[in-house]
Amino acid sequence: MILENLKVKPISMETGRNIVLLNEEDVKDLGAYAGDRIKVTTPRGSLVVIINTARTLVQKGEIGTSIEATKALDVQSGDIVSVALAPYPQSARAIRKKMRGEQLSEKEVFAVVDDIVAGNLSTAELTAFVTAQYIREMTMDEIVALTRRMVDSGEKIDFETSPVMDVHSIGGVPGNKYALITVPIVAVTGLPVPKTSSRAITSAAGTADVMEVLTNVSLSAEEIKRIVRKIGATLTWGGALKLAPADDVLIGVERILSIDPRCQLLASVMSKKIAAGADHVLIDIPTGPDSKVESLEEARSLAHDFLELGHRLRVQVETALTYGGQPIGYAIGPALEAQEALETLAGKGPGSLVEKSISLAGIMLEFGGVANYGMGRQMAFDILNSGKADKKFREIIEAQGGDPNVKPEDLPIGDKRETVTAPHDGYITNVDNHRIINIARAVGAPRDRGAGIKIILKKGHKVGKGEPLFEIYAEHEKKLDDALSLAKRYPPIKIESILLERLTHTPRAG
Amino acid sequence: MILENLKVKPISMETGRNIVLLNEEDVKDLGAYAGDRIKVTTPRGSLVVIINTARTLVQKGEIGTSIEATKALDVQSGDIVSVALAPYPQSARAIRKKMRGEQLSEKEVFAVVDDIVAGNLSTAELTAFVTAQYIREMTMDEIVALTRRMVDSGEKIDFETSPVMDVHSIGGVPGNKYALITVPIVAVTGLPVPKTSSRAITSAAGTADVMEVLTNVSLSAEEIKRIVRKIGATLTWGGALKLAPADDVLIGVERILSIDPRCQLLASVMSKKIAAGADHVLIDIPTGPDSKVESLEEARSLAHDFLELGHRLRVQVETALTYGGQPIGYAIGPALEAQEALETLAGKGPGSLVEKSISLAGIMLEFGGVANYGMGRQMAFDILNSGKADKKFREIIEAQGGDPNVKPEDLPIGDKRETVTAPHDGYITNVDNHRIINIARAVGAPRDRGAGIKIILKKGHKVGKGEPLFEIYAEHEKKLDDALSLAKRYPPIKIESILLERLTHTPRAG
Repeated sequence: MILENLKVKPISMETGRNIVLLNEEDVKDLGAYAGDRIKVTTPRGSLVVIINTARTLVQKGEIGTSIEATKALDVQSGDIVSVALAPYPQSARAIRKKMRGEQLSEKEVFAVVDDIVAGNLSTAELTAFVTAQYIREMTMDEIVALTRRMVDSGEKIDFETSPVMDVHSIGGVPGNKYALITVPIVAVTGLPVPKTSSRAITSAAGTADVMEVLTNVSLSAEEIKRIVRKIGATLTWGGALKLAPADDVLIGVERILSIDPRCQLLASVMSKKIAAGADHVLIDIPTGPDSKVESLEEARSLAHDFLELGHRLRVQVETALTYGGQPIGYAIGPALEAQEALETLAGKGPGSLVEKSISLAGIMLEFGGVANYGMGRQMAFDILNSGKADKKFREIIEAQGGDPNVKPEDLPIGDKRETVTAPHDGYITNVDNHRIINIARAVGAPRDRGAGIKIILKKGHKVGKGEPLFEIYAEHEKKLDDALSLAKRYPPIKIESILLERLTHTPRAG
Repeated sequence: MILENLKVKPISMETGRNIVLLNEEDVKDLGAYAGDRIKVTTPRGSLVVIINTARTLVQKGEIGTSIEATKALDVQSGDIVSVALAPYPQSARAIRKKMRGEQLSEKEVFAVVDDIVAGNLSTAELTAFVTAQYIREMTMDEIVALTRRMVDSGEKIDFETSPVMDVHSIGGVPGNKYALITVPIVAVTGLPVPKTSSRAITSAAGTADVMEVLTNVSLSAEEIKRIVRKIGATLTWGGALKLAPADDVLIGVERILSIDPRCQLLASVMSKKIAAGADHVLIDIPTGPDSKVESLEEARSLAHDFLELGHRLRVQVETALTYGGQPIGYAIGPALEAQEALETLAGKGPGSLVEKSISLAGIMLEFGGVANYGMGRQMAFDILNSGKADKKFREIIEAQGGDPNVKPEDLPIGDKRETVTAPHDGYITNVDNHRIINIARAVGAPRDRGAGIKIILKKGHKVGKGEPLFEIYAEHEKKLDDALSLAKRYPPIKIESILLERLTHTPRAG
């Protein structure tokens, strides 16, 4: 069945996919249902899109086109097109196969990625794919195919040299601003480090959010190449490039379902790093209670998969399991973290942040070939202490368009503040990552750059009743109240008296 | 974070769920993403809905409401509302639990059904649930809870008597108009049979589509009760009632994914039958190549599950495995099938249709308590031959508002016709259900009531080159051409010469 002479009516709606709206009468005449695929033929060509049903927004004889569909079809208001039911695509067949638990061929994985990028899959099909990935998992062969095609489906940067270093933390621990210290340390030795990062999705601040307090992070591939050639490193927002666009679509679905299938995590990280031009990648896996990976066994198994995937894709991968059981450093929130990073580069950083930054930098120096095995950490520490990393970092800030002379105290920290104190004497036995993140988000991070938390005392410290535990910084009074009431209901810092439990010996009967 | 003073802008779009549109700026300010749940507070109350993002259709400060959301929120254009991020509901947690392969408690299953009916789940969550049902399957405890809650979530008919009979075929075989013969046979004995049926979803004609050629099928619960009390039976469209509405939402997702999870099939069939008031249900499972259930083992296992589910829900269930390897009777398409049913009731029906109709009626007479074990089929055959079933069927037609004196030749059969002939001599070795259905749909069934196929020769018949195999009936010339070209590309009737294969004996070497 073909419907002819439909009049295009662009609808200013973002759907993330090529969706068209037909009047319910036309949908019935077509023998179709919402969610079905139809082939739209325009004077200039044809394209398969997904239909939704409208009652009155789109009249019989009209075809409403989403912002994406209007662009993809290259049509404008009043254009005349025809539509017909489209055959079931190979990618949808492949998704059902994965649902049944069968392994997909390289060709089938490619078809899925291609149709994701082309916007040819409905939300239901995308979700079925992610759900099947989560439940059925994927073999290394499938993950390799997935990663390869995700790389090829988007923009790629070629630095025409090797090694090109990068480091990526799989996240889950707040205050994780190590990259602002690690990257300049490595760059001082001449190793190129075009680090790309994400913005916060569910955390209080992504590396790109923190860096953006200091300089511009939305750079083009050409600008990144130019700066890396000149000064050796950049710290930019990966989202400004079109790296592995299929990954962003799948991440959207994962977010709604609050799941993170391991196979997709592997493909996601590696595809973005490879597309950004890196061939030597260090993966940081924060491990500990309330972090993304809770046990060492799980962390080791994930590390093994990253190593295997890197080997299959001919990328040098190293992995580091770092302690992620409480925040890194003391500052959480974009401006507060940028401040702490500047202080750390100036030699006045907290132990946990210095330790993490130089440990990761040390591994990179060793597998980048500038330090002997076992000597990287000390070399990184020396570079940090010499002031050269601070200088390099300011070169990066300047090259990306920021002020190289910025001082920690210049940064716009929220001026509405409140200190939370200990309700009783005791020892701090836990700083809960999730609760810290929730409070920081409630107070406005990452959107309000100056909002966040400064922890005063961490695990193991003795504390007296009324002593300060942490400070909350806000840009808006209302959000400060929200965050305070959240901190009261779900205290992020646990204080216990030294006597945790009392066991009494009872003489056995008989 | 709360957004205050949003102005309601109703959007005339059907989404099947309570969806609101916010401008992308407002979505960001809220710290939310498309697909998230927000609580909308109106002057009259509050409700949790799902947000989508708009660029220009909805401006900053506006809130676009889908047709469903406008109704559910009880708002109109210009009303002022506020929105805030809503907590993650229990049902979404339960869906994730099912994805992990854990068994859901009764309470969790109830939460999922309730949120489906309330429109609180996003497409992604609905799909994740159906996909998890398909991959992880459900225990009988879960299926019982699912069925119970689906029954309770919609309209229910109570006939205040027992037994109340019903029969349901799980489908997959074309030409399956048995109910128009079976139901009146059973009703003749005084057993009440308020049969509800569906319209075609992927088939060429549902029982409701066929019956609608003869009379009105959209009856209310009150009308059904009144007619059943008076003449003992109805044949109506279940969709006119609000039976188990959660089921319809899930069926929409299953259709897009082309999957039919067994647990959902069980819950779907039983919930609709129970809600429609039946307490004695016969389940017909057509079995054979190219039907829904291909092997006897699979059919028996499914039958066992239906019996167990009936037992748990205190409904008398019987199951019948019938041959479904080729169409039932010769006619496919609403008017053609109605014609064949009338002819069969008049004693001039084809063997396969008579056989199926009286076999199923016989089982119903036995477990309804009016025939002794083993005697039902003969009693049904006698009733059919006596003309009493024909008379009863015409009473049903009249009670529902149709012409009781309708003759087979009165029915509006498509006047554009073409006969397809045998391309060579041979034996008919296969009549392909899927291909027959596809051709019937291409020629316009079920929307064009007079469109369809009349098969002339079925499996096992000898045929000479040029002899007629089947006729295609159309209401529109264009569709006749479409169907003919489809029949040419994918011949639905396979003819093989008697010598199927030639095996030559080769003397073994050595």
